[in-house]
Amino acid sequence: MLTINRLSHSDALILIDGAREKSRDIGIPMCISIVDESGNLIAFERMDGGKVTSITISQDKAFTAAAAKKATHEYNAANVPGNLAFGIHTEVGGRLSSVGGGLPVVVDGEVVGGIGLSSGTPAQDMECAEAGLKYFKRTIE
Amino acid sequence: MLTINRLSHSDALILIDGAREKSRDIGIPMCISIVDESGNLIAFERMDGGKVTSITISQDKAFTAAAAKKATHEYNAANVPGNLAFGIHTEVGGRLSSVGGGLPVVVDGEVVGGIGLSSGTPAQDMECAEAGLKYFKRTIE
Amino acid sequence: MLTINRLSHSDALILIDGAREKSRDIGIPMCISIVDESGNLIAFERMDGGKVTSITISQDKAFTAAAAKKATHEYNAANVPGNLAFGIHTEVGGRLSSVGGGLPVVVDGEVVGGIGLSSGTPAQDMECAEAGLKYFKRTIE
Amino acid sequence: MLTINRLSHSDALILIDGAREKSRDIGIPMCISIVDESGNLIAFERMDGGKVTSITISQDKAFTAAAAKKATHEYNAANVPGNLAFGIHTEVGGRLSSVGGGLPVVVDGEVVGGIGLSSGTPAQDMECAEAGLKYFKRTIE
Repeated sequence: MLTINRLSHSDALILIDGAREKSRDIGIPMCISIVDESGNLIAFERMDGGKVTSITISQDKAFTAAAAKKATHEYNAANVPGNLAFGIHTEVGGRLSSVGGGLPVVVDGEVVGGIGLSSGTPAQDMECAEAGLKYFKRTIE
Repeated sequence: MLTINRLSHSDALILIDGAREKSRDIGIPMCISIVDESGNLIAFERMDGGKVTSITISQDKAFTAAAAKKATHEYNAANVPGNLAFGIHTEVGGRLSSVGGGLPVVVDGEVVGGIGLSSGTPAQDMECAEAGLKYFKRTIE
Repeated sequence: MLTINRLSHSDALILIDGAREKSRDIGIPMCISIVDESGNLIAFERMDGGKVTSITISQDKAFTAAAAKKATHEYNAANVPGNLAFGIHTEVGGRLSSVGGGLPVVVDGEVVGGIGLSSGTPAQDMECAEAGLKYFKRTIE
Repeated sequence: MLTINRLSHSDALILIDGAREKSRDIGIPMCISIVDESGNLIAFERMDGGKVTSITISQDKAFTAAAAKKATHEYNAANVPGNLAFGIHTEVGGRLSSVGGGLPVVVDGEVVGGIGLSSGTPAQDMECAEAGLKYFKRTIE
C-alpha cells in the first residue's frame, strides 16, 4: 500500500486567495483551478469577467502540472518542432497543456496538487499562479 | 441588443455556502457546482471526501439545469421508455443529465444560473441543492 | 493536507492473480483492470482471447468502482427508468459504468482502488472480480 | 483469409520486464504499455511513482508504433512545419503520437505489436523501450 499526500479543500482555497489577489493587482479577472496530486479538480473560481474558454484551459493547466509533475511552461519549452517531445500537447485528449500558467504544488519535495490560471497572457497567468504558490507557502509555514 | 442577468462569483459562493451546510448536516461530503445562465462554470468545490466521478456529474447537473432551464429530476421524470423525450440523457455528449440534483437558479422569474450537487443519493443531492437555493434567496432579499 | 492510502503496483498484481485464476477456472479469458483510489490505471492484463471492447469496459468498471466508491452492479440496480439516478451511465463521457463487474477495493473501511473485469457475462465478470478481492484479502492479512 | 502473428500476453510480460529493469537502472518510474499488432492494449504497468498523464501517453505511443508500423520518434522527425507530414500528431483523435518512446515490435520482418514508455524525457523513454525489445529478442531466441 502507498501513502499519498494531497491538498485539502482548505489548502486549495489558500492557493486561490493568493492567485486572486495578484489577478486583482494586475487588473485581469482570471479563471483559477486547483487540482489534487492525481489531477482531479478540488476548487475552481471564475472571477467576474474571466473568459469562458479559460474554464477548461485553467483546469487542463492544473491537471498537467500535477499529473505530469511539471510546469506547463516547461512543456512549452520542449514542445518545439524537432524536439523529441514535439506534439505532446495533443495527448490525453488534448488536455496536456503546453501553455504557460500551470504549476505543480510541491510540499517537502512531493507533488501534492496543481494550480492553473487562465484569462491573461501566459506571462500574466504564470505570475498569478506563482503568487498563489507563494501565498500558500507563507501560510502553511 | 439583449441584457442578460447572471449570477456573479459572490452569488455563486452564497449558493455553495448553503449547499455545503446541508451536506455537513447530513454527513455526506459533496461536489458542488455553480454555473451561469449559459451553463458555464463559475465556482466549484469538492469537499474533502467528495467523489471523483461527481466532479463531472455535479457540473453536468448544473449545466443542464441552467442551459435547459429545467431541473434534472424533471428530465428524469420524462426520460422513460415510451415518452417522446426518452434518450435525452445521451445528448450534448452525454452532458444532459437526467439524474436528480441539478436545479436552475431563478430570480424574478428568470434563470440566472444553475446549481448541481453530486456524491450522495439523488434525493440527498436534491436536498442539498435546494438548501443552496433557499440560503441564496434568504441572503439576497 | 490530506493523507490518502492507495494500492501499490504489487498490490495490483495480487488482485490480478486472483481474478485470472477464477477466469481460468470458468474458462473465460478476461480483461482485468486495476485502478488507484482516484480511478487511474495501475495495471492491466488482457488474457489471450480477451475481448477488444473489454479493454475499455474493464477500465471503466474499475474507474467507476474506485472513483464513485460503489460497485457497478449497484449503479445497475439504480439505473432503471423512473429511478432518480436513471441516465447516470452516460456521465463522465460515458465512462461511468452500470454494468456488473466493477468493485471497489476496500481496506480498513477506506476505498484504496478498484478492480474491473470484462469479457464474460456480467455475472461471470462479477465472480472473477470478487475472486480477485478475496485473494487480495487473504494475501495481505 | 489472412493469418496474423501477434504478441501473446506472456510475450507482453517479457517486454515489460526488460523495460522495467532499465527504468529501475536509470531511476525513473515509468508507465509501460504493450499493444498487439492492431494497436489494442495487452498489458500495462504503472510503476509506483509513474505519472498519471503517462498512462494515456504510453498507450498512445505503443498504439502508434504498432498500428502505424513506425517508431514515434520517426514521426517526430517528419512532424516539422513544411514537411508534408506536419500535423500528423492531431490525427486519430490526437492519439497518433510524435513523441519519442514508442517502438514497433518486429519479429521476422513483421510487426506483431508495439511498446510505449512514458514518464521520463523522450530519450529516457526511448532507452527503456529499446531495452524491452532487446530483452524480448534475447528471450525468444
